[in-house]
Amino acid sequence: MIYPTASEAIAAISAGTQTVEGTVRHLLERHDATDRTVQAWAHLDPDAALTSAKTLDQRSNPAGLPALGLVFAAKDNFDTHDMPTAYGSKIHASSFPPRDASAIASLRLAGGLLLGKTTSTEFAHVYPGPTTNPHNAAHTPGGSSSGSAAAVAAGMVHVAFGSQTTGSVIRPAAYCGTVGYKATHGHINPSGMLANAPSFDTAGLIARSIDDVALVHSVLMARPIAPVTPVSVKGLRIAIARTPWWKDADDEAQASLEQAAEHLAKAGAKLSDFDDLGAFDELDTISQRVSGFEFARTMGHERLYAMDQLSDDLRYGRMQTGFDTDYDQYLIDQQRLHHARHALDRAFSDADVVISLPAPGTAPEGIRRTGSPIFNMPWTSLHAPAMTLPLFTGANALPMGLQVSAKRHNDLELFQMAAGISASYT
Amino acid sequence: MIYPTASEAIAAISAGTQTVEGTVRHLLERHDATDRTVQAWAHLDPDAALTSAKTLDQRSNPAGLPALGLVFAAKDNFDTHDMPTAYGSKIHASSFPPRDASAIASLRLAGGLLLGKTTSTEFAHVYPGPTTNPHNAAHTPGGSSSGSAAAVAAGMVHVAFGSQTTGSVIRPAAYCGTVGYKATHGHINPSGMLANAPSFDTAGLIARSIDDVALVHSVLMARPIAPVTPVSVKGLRIAIARTPWWKDADDEAQASLEQAAEHLAKAGAKLSDFDDLGAFDELDTISQRVSGFEFARTMGHERLYAMDQLSDDLRYGRMQTGFDTDYDQYLIDQQRLHHARHALDRAFSDADVVISLPAPGTAPEGIRRTGSPIFNMPWTSLHAPAMTLPLFTGANALPMGLQVSAKRHNDLELFQMAAGISASYT
Repeated sequence: MIYPTASEAIAAISAGTQTVEGTVRHLLERHDATDRTVQAWAHLDPDAALTSAKTLDQRSNPAGLPALGLVFAAKDNFDTHDMPTAYGSKIHASSFPPRDASAIASLRLAGGLLLGKTTSTEFAHVYPGPTTNPHNAAHTPGGSSSGSAAAVAAGMVHVAFGSQTTGSVIRPAAYCGTVGYKATHGHINPSGMLANAPSFDTAGLIARSIDDVALVHSVLMARPIAPVTPVSVKGLRIAIARTPWWKDADDEAQASLEQAAEHLAKAGAKLSDFDDLGAFDELDTISQRVSGFEFARTMGHERLYAMDQLSDDLRYGRMQTGFDTDYDQYLIDQQRLHHARHALDRAFSDADVVISLPAPGTAPEGIRRTGSPIFNMPWTSLHAPAMTLPLFTGANALPMGLQVSAKRHNDLELFQMAAGISASYT
Repeated sequence: MIYPTASEAIAAISAGTQTVEGTVRHLLERHDATDRTVQAWAHLDPDAALTSAKTLDQRSNPAGLPALGLVFAAKDNFDTHDMPTAYGSKIHASSFPPRDASAIASLRLAGGLLLGKTTSTEFAHVYPGPTTNPHNAAHTPGGSSSGSAAAVAAGMVHVAFGSQTTGSVIRPAAYCGTVGYKATHGHINPSGMLANAPSFDTAGLIARSIDDVALVHSVLMARPIAPVTPVSVKGLRIAIARTPWWKDADDEAQASLEQAAEHLAKAGAKLSDFDDLGAFDELDTISQRVSGFEFARTMGHERLYAMDQLSDDLRYGRMQTGFDTDYDQYLIDQQRLHHARHALDRAFSDADVVISLPAPGTAPEGIRRTGSPIFNMPWTSLHAPAMTLPLFTGANALPMGLQVSAKRHNDLELFQMAAGISASYT
């Protein structure tokens, strides 16, 4: 990676070799150099950012600010009281929610600087914004956290928050060649993050290193900041999840996962085929119905006041699925999800970590469609933590990732195993 | 009940014997007669309400509005775009969120009229507003949904939304002599309801009849509106949950539950002692730590910008518990909650419905404290639906309720069993 990470920026501030203002100026130069093409931002006010940076540089107690020097972005479905929050929709172009989202306030409390808001698809569903893939502007950055992945990949910001209801963090992170992290459901407090389908909505992070993910995670969880200690892959029980949707992946993507398995086996890991114990059975259908049922209700305000300003993709997509799903079906599906989550917990008794595809291939051409979330959906629906690691390169020099997942609540272990897997490639 | 229910009001509109405007005028008369003492409202604009009523009376397609004639309130921690949303705090006295909460928008879509916003304790924690108990102004209405319970009890509105993180719907409903309903976690979409501790936060309703609860539930779930069919208590398997906190209840409350069990046994129900299969073990401690951990984070905005405007009750209460709870403990507690929820599911294989106390006694004297949520906490933490039925009267003519609970997702069955239990007393 050619751009500094958050960890490096914080260290430089702490050592007195850099100021927050200098850090922001450097990132704004990257913005000026790239964003005319990338278009990652829903809102960015350079002057306001520099003013905030100067204020932080004058803080009397920098030792009390463990994230001083961290410059972050948030997808425009995280509320901000001092920047507009449009949720990717013209309906809310000038909306200012009264409170910062929990994740944003938590980083600001620790000295982090919010540079701006990154583009989201419309209400974090599928209708895209103008953002392009920094690796190739003719390709999508993925969605719905399009701008967060693109801004991090282009070096315009250290880390960026995203949200995932199906595959909205891991997929764009993989398409853009960054590290992506979707937490165990609920670990990153969702307060102030736009609801899409609350049973699945999960906050996540896009970053340029596993250490940066762990750093932000530590700030959010009020833990001491420390580099991740990689777990050796030697003896690690790694299971390959091809999943019931394997045929949706293209040859190049399938080959990347098979080759990763071979590589890890050679490095001493104990490879096996992942037995999901039935957890994934019909999970795509269940996930679609439950997210539809909930989305039709979270969109109550816009149904009431602005139905004609919603895209056809939204009205005839997830919202229509919601209208078509009745309460009795929703109850059955919720009960199946409870059982599937417990089955997945048990399935992890035979595996420390599961590797799978973060996407069916590299970023598709064009920006009208943001790609398929099918390989992310199981971990989101079942609340398990997942990361994507930017380990491979596909055709047209587009990035490809490796998705790694762990048992519910084992986020810290996932960071260590991801670091070990990543280290095995260096 | 001397005041019309929502079901009666909707029927009168449908029959053409009443207008929405007339309904609102009648409710406003109750307001004028009682609210100087009760003080249930955080925001109420009579002229705006009458204007909305007239607009609804002129709607060309009233048949498409199944809740036309329903006049409802929402606790002031449900977002409204057209009324201030203060969250029970002076910090947000003039805050206007950009979107209506899902529950509010859903009733408005069906023709319901939002009369105003009812008082909440500070951020739905414990610091109270000015509201008094309509049965005796020297006593608390309970909290944190103080105004919703008081407004319904005083006849100022048909139904009111509340939220429950520990015992904030069922307890005030019982103290005020109304029906209260806390849904299975997630059933009533929480979008736009202030987050307190998202793992537990649950929307609920306060109403004057079980039919009214079911009516609103049907609107929210897009089901046909129909009166509840009571299940006969004859042969019904009813379990009594005294819970590990039985000694916290006063003699009068304990006697009310024992007498209810005797009455139901005489009416033909199969009574048993509820075996919670360990689900309730240490649940009070677990619930406090988890809600503290999450609350300290949902309050990020105010910690950052307005810490000095928070009450000591809040800073040294749930927020401090959050600062004192580390992430490792939180993970252990979350895993215990998963297991406890499954244990409770299994425990319901021996019981159709569980009866317990909605509160340790009648509403305490004074309005500075809102009473103990300990008997509501298990059902909230474990996501099971609960209702309180206003069946009894205690000392000083203060109301007492009977709490009834069912298995997760069995909300419709709970309405029917509650109706059967209620009918057995008439």
